[in-house]
Amino acid sequence: MNILCVAAHPDDTELLCAGTLARYVREGHRVTIAIFTDGSIGDAVVKPDILSATREKEARAAAEILGADLIWTGVTDELVFPDKEQRHLMIDVLRRADPDVIFTHSPNDYHPDHRYVSQLVFDSYFQKGLPHMPGQSLPACRFAGAQLYYMDNIGGINFLPTEYVDITDVFETKKAMLACHKSQFVAMEDLASIDMNWMIQMQAGFRGLAAGCRYAEGFTRLDASQRGLTRRVLP
Amino acid sequence: MNILCVAAHPDDTELLCAGTLARYVREGHRVTIAIFTDGSIGDAVVKPDILSATREKEARAAAEILGADLIWTGVTDELVFPDKEQRHLMIDVLRRADPDVIFTHSPNDYHPDHRYVSQLVFDSYFQKGLPHMPGQSLPACRFAGAQLYYMDNIGGINFLPTEYVDITDVFETKKAMLACHKSQFVAMEDLASIDMNWMIQMQAGFRGLAAGCRYAEGFTRLDASQRGLTRRVLP
Amino acid sequence: MNILCVAAHPDDTELLCAGTLARYVREGHRVTIAIFTDGSIGDAVVKPDILSATREKEARAAAEILGADLIWTGVTDELVFPDKEQRHLMIDVLRRADPDVIFTHSPNDYHPDHRYVSQLVFDSYFQKGLPHMPGQSLPACRFAGAQLYYMDNIGGINFLPTEYVDITDVFETKKAMLACHKSQFVAMEDLASIDMNWMIQMQAGFRGLAAGCRYAEGFTRLDASQRGLTRRVLP
Amino acid sequence: MNILCVAAHPDDTELLCAGTLARYVREGHRVTIAIFTDGSIGDAVVKPDILSATREKEARAAAEILGADLIWTGVTDELVFPDKEQRHLMIDVLRRADPDVIFTHSPNDYHPDHRYVSQLVFDSYFQKGLPHMPGQSLPACRFAGAQLYYMDNIGGINFLPTEYVDITDVFETKKAMLACHKSQFVAMEDLASIDMNWMIQMQAGFRGLAAGCRYAEGFTRLDASQRGLTRRVLP
Amino acid sequence: MNILCVAAHPDDTELLCAGTLARYVREGHRVTIAIFTDGSIGDAVVKPDILSATREKEARAAAEILGADLIWTGVTDELVFPDKEQRHLMIDVLRRADPDVIFTHSPNDYHPDHRYVSQLVFDSYFQKGLPHMPGQSLPACRFAGAQLYYMDNIGGINFLPTEYVDITDVFETKKAMLACHKSQFVAMEDLASIDMNWMIQMQAGFRGLAAGCRYAEGFTRLDASQRGLTRRVLP
Amino acid sequence: MNILCVAAHPDDTELLCAGTLARYVREGHRVTIAIFTDGSIGDAVVKPDILSATREKEARAAAEILGADLIWTGVTDELVFPDKEQRHLMIDVLRRADPDVIFTHSPNDYHPDHRYVSQLVFDSYFQKGLPHMPGQSLPACRFAGAQLYYMDNIGGINFLPTEYVDITDVFETKKAMLACHKSQFVAMEDLASIDMNWMIQMQAGFRGLAAGCRYAEGFTRLDASQRGLTRRVLP
Repeated sequence: MNILCVAAHPDDTELLCAGTLARYVREGHRVTIAIFTDGSIGDAVVKPDILSATREKEARAAAEILGADLIWTGVTDELVFPDKEQRHLMIDVLRRADPDVIFTHSPNDYHPDHRYVSQLVFDSYFQKGLPHMPGQSLPACRFAGAQLYYMDNIGGINFLPTEYVDITDVFETKKAMLACHKSQFVAMEDLASIDMNWMIQMQAGFRGLAAGCRYAEGFTRLDASQRGLTRRVLP
Repeated sequence: MNILCVAAHPDDTELLCAGTLARYVREGHRVTIAIFTDGSIGDAVVKPDILSATREKEARAAAEILGADLIWTGVTDELVFPDKEQRHLMIDVLRRADPDVIFTHSPNDYHPDHRYVSQLVFDSYFQKGLPHMPGQSLPACRFAGAQLYYMDNIGGINFLPTEYVDITDVFETKKAMLACHKSQFVAMEDLASIDMNWMIQMQAGFRGLAAGCRYAEGFTRLDASQRGLTRRVLP
Repeated sequence: MNILCVAAHPDDTELLCAGTLARYVREGHRVTIAIFTDGSIGDAVVKPDILSATREKEARAAAEILGADLIWTGVTDELVFPDKEQRHLMIDVLRRADPDVIFTHSPNDYHPDHRYVSQLVFDSYFQKGLPHMPGQSLPACRFAGAQLYYMDNIGGINFLPTEYVDITDVFETKKAMLACHKSQFVAMEDLASIDMNWMIQMQAGFRGLAAGCRYAEGFTRLDASQRGLTRRVLP
Repeated sequence: MNILCVAAHPDDTELLCAGTLARYVREGHRVTIAIFTDGSIGDAVVKPDILSATREKEARAAAEILGADLIWTGVTDELVFPDKEQRHLMIDVLRRADPDVIFTHSPNDYHPDHRYVSQLVFDSYFQKGLPHMPGQSLPACRFAGAQLYYMDNIGGINFLPTEYVDITDVFETKKAMLACHKSQFVAMEDLASIDMNWMIQMQAGFRGLAAGCRYAEGFTRLDASQRGLTRRVLP
Repeated sequence: MNILCVAAHPDDTELLCAGTLARYVREGHRVTIAIFTDGSIGDAVVKPDILSATREKEARAAAEILGADLIWTGVTDELVFPDKEQRHLMIDVLRRADPDVIFTHSPNDYHPDHRYVSQLVFDSYFQKGLPHMPGQSLPACRFAGAQLYYMDNIGGINFLPTEYVDITDVFETKKAMLACHKSQFVAMEDLASIDMNWMIQMQAGFRGLAAGCRYAEGFTRLDASQRGLTRRVLP
Repeated sequence: MNILCVAAHPDDTELLCAGTLARYVREGHRVTIAIFTDGSIGDAVVKPDILSATREKEARAAAEILGADLIWTGVTDELVFPDKEQRHLMIDVLRRADPDVIFTHSPNDYHPDHRYVSQLVFDSYFQKGLPHMPGQSLPACRFAGAQLYYMDNIGGINFLPTEYVDITDVFETKKAMLACHKSQFVAMEDLASIDMNWMIQMQAGFRGLAAGCRYAEGFTRLDASQRGLTRRVLP
């Protein structure tokens, strides 16, 4: 299968979905990480241009560890909007990856960019397969029913997972991928006094406590009609 | 009363609301169907211009069977956005119909156009009666409290009806109206292997099972203050 | 129609449903108020026997103002349990009234007696019409689908009404009925510093604000299959 | 695996779960149907003793078609209570079947017996594996984490499935099983004017519409900690 | 602390939050009221320019009674959109007030302007503290975690408060502030036959009934990670 | 204030509430832990009598570390029922502690004993202050409005906290209290392969991630009318 994770910022995938993606890679599926913004604004000191370049490098290093393709869309950080222009961009992201399974942010996450990326993915996943969709740079991919999963929220705020993936065996991969995002370890510590390693250990350990394993990632599924809901496509 | 159903695409009304509208017509009310997009994109083969023309003809034929007026707004299919331009269009749709009762898509339906039409109707139904609203082509209609109902979702996904209308006696009218949308019988079969007659029989039969009759249509009501919530305006 | 309100304590009906019952009486329906407990325990000073006798007298006076029958079941106050013994009692209450419409407490009200009366009504309303139900003193009444409504919670805690009844014209009747419960005006003032007239004015005024009239009572409907859900049976 | 469906009445399994059980049988799993009451009260004419004997015969015939074991507990119909006595009975039902997967009624179904059977299953499934549980006739079975699924409600009232099983290929088995319950075809027709074949076709057809197949059964999973939530155990 | 209330229209603060703000002022905190639109469209007779000027004067008078700063943003009434342009405006509103506590409309209020102001506040409160945010006229304020509260909905529609503030002692201030909005007393009476004094008495009296005092205002808190959720910052 | 935590089993308090209780003790409040069952059944090998004696000793040791009173009610483990007999017991537990703040299990926790203890506390907290309540061994305590909080569920299943208490400074006390329950470290490891130290670190660390501190405990409040909801009584 083709697996696609669409995140707003360079480290979001690592925090909430990397373990699941590593399971897919191990099972031989093709995985793509799409990062919708340029990640340029999230630091109090480093200038946008420099920050963006750094974060792209970090993201590519993390994707390489996973063995995944990377799509870097480059929308200005903090300025995601579900408008026509960004819709066209998102449809082309989906067309490039032609996914059977999609992961993205939860619609009620804490960050506006996360929410709007989620909305854009929802708005686009039906339209990726329509050949006459105007204004796209890429031709339509398969219409057939991709399943869409929403990633957990940090600290579980407003989020009760209904699906769990056991990531105990690939937790080290997740950690190694996260470690690539050096600039974020600094920024998070500065802005919010958070250690990102602590963050993923609590997040994955807590979801594991629920699911019955050491570490897990939690998701909810978008239930939409005619999307093959009788099968589990998660690893 | 004036009854208005605002749908995103030419066959949406038939699938989820036509029986209820037929009940209203039978009781002597004036019914209007507004179709917000041109329905041009939903086929994998037929070109947009040709498809749109076909679908408008089909929609007019269905409205004629019902005895309803048709408003054809012509926004490009798959590109509904709750922005200022389309808000102005929607307010004028409402002003033209001057409704006592409004039906539209549920805010969490599976299709982005459905969701955004729903949002535009919500955004506009308060403003239709404000005389000084800038940028409108039509003068304000009555301000007084129209009740707004959301139509069911196909397969009941994310939808629990709180209101039911018995459509057993008018089910044949609904079927005849749906039959006008020949192009959609083909497209749905091709894209998703669905027979649309099966679809409405399951949908209306299941809601009837709940409501205590053969066939029913299910709705939820938008509860908003000062809208005459002590009366049932449904047939 | 036969209308039945089943309350746990002598003044519950007056606080949350009396206006609606008055509307039914005015339209010529037969109304019964059933009080399930003896109301004996709710005062810090007055002895149970004396209190119970007082409250029965007050309840009968209020029912007389309304023009309703009164059923006084006499279960010990504060000791309602959804067990077999009280189930038998409740089924006979329903059989005596043979209702088309039933009102009772919301399942998540603040008082255990309210919650368990609600549960007993739910448990019994299907069984009232089964002729072979063992252990009953009264024969089965009609099986046919009575609709069941849950009354509002005081202060709206955990309660969002979905149905409203305009009681503006009968608010004085409601007030007169409540005034019969003199013992409760004292007890509520002593235990919780509440003036019961203030209470009903705020409760009915607030629900009227939502519904679009001066005073209203709010309810939710129990949706159960095959109960004639396509009609509004509320006044 | 050992699969167990615990139903309150003789035909409940056929209406909501038989297709899924047939899938399990086809895959070689051992299936048990437990019927908790004697089904004696649900007819307006036939006497309890005679009705109960008839319904047990019908249930055994249906189980035979499926190739399943039948447990007939014999609690008086309409008198299920989540008390100590019936808890002991339910724990022994679970111990006899030693299930890996359990199906039972949804906690908010329309019938009190359904709700209380659901509650008794919940209350017992943790305790089935505790060796020192007092008052049981059977020794403890495995403690290990069985997953528990709640069956759909008729007409979908208060129920949004999160899991679907494709039963298209076994729908005829489901129909044949239901056909064994001849007494119920009569009773349902008399009491509520319902044709049970229509009922299962609408129910399974509607859930199929959502899931993307011809016929499906819908469920929700009880999420409880440490129950192996990272795997799908449904067929 | 710095307290900020962001409302869509000139009288919204008075209806739902003024008592709480008065409590803050009394405790010595700095309070700012921001009004996002020019309030120009809500009257059926008075011209927009004149109405807007009147309402600004009324709002300034009310703020003066409270002892609060007023920010008048001047977006055209009825045309709030969560787009890039208005996002920039909202971020600067927040930067000007540099709040520790923010109040705004509930995301599911009845008026589109209320909903979109709520969305804009959510979208902006994270970004107010990012120094490199492009397109802003004001420099970043503190990043640190302001708590965000949603105001009640009129008539409690779709709103269950989780936080209450006792405003009994400052109810007269609230009333005096509301009285400044003379133009609205007329408009509400004309358009919807509502007396605004009745409105606040029912709203605050009903919430007081729940909370255990004479008058209260109800709120919900936006739970977002790392926002100091272990403290109550309400008076 | 008087603080009371009512748990079903000897280690439940330590897992979910001990940090908050330690905060109360530190602030000079009087804390009582009530354990409703004898904890006799939860081990696969150790006999009930011996296990119960061991667990009582462990519980007393933990309470001593905290500086709290212990109430040991002695209901048979796994056999909690919300019936009249256990209601009387629970009312007397509450009367003995005369609480201003009560903690107990969430009504939808995974264990039947937890759910029924929760239900019994709800059923009793109104009745603890009624002098004429029949069948009690202890006289009524204060009627006045105690606030009731529900403890978190392990792994957060079906639980979204609305209140958080920062327990970073007292986490070692919590750990020391848990360490007293040696028998449970063995039983949990045997039955479910869980290390209880890991469990509390994940649980408190994850809630801290949400709340903005190192370790937190999460709760929901029972909102009931007239219970002083305008104040935070949590530390």
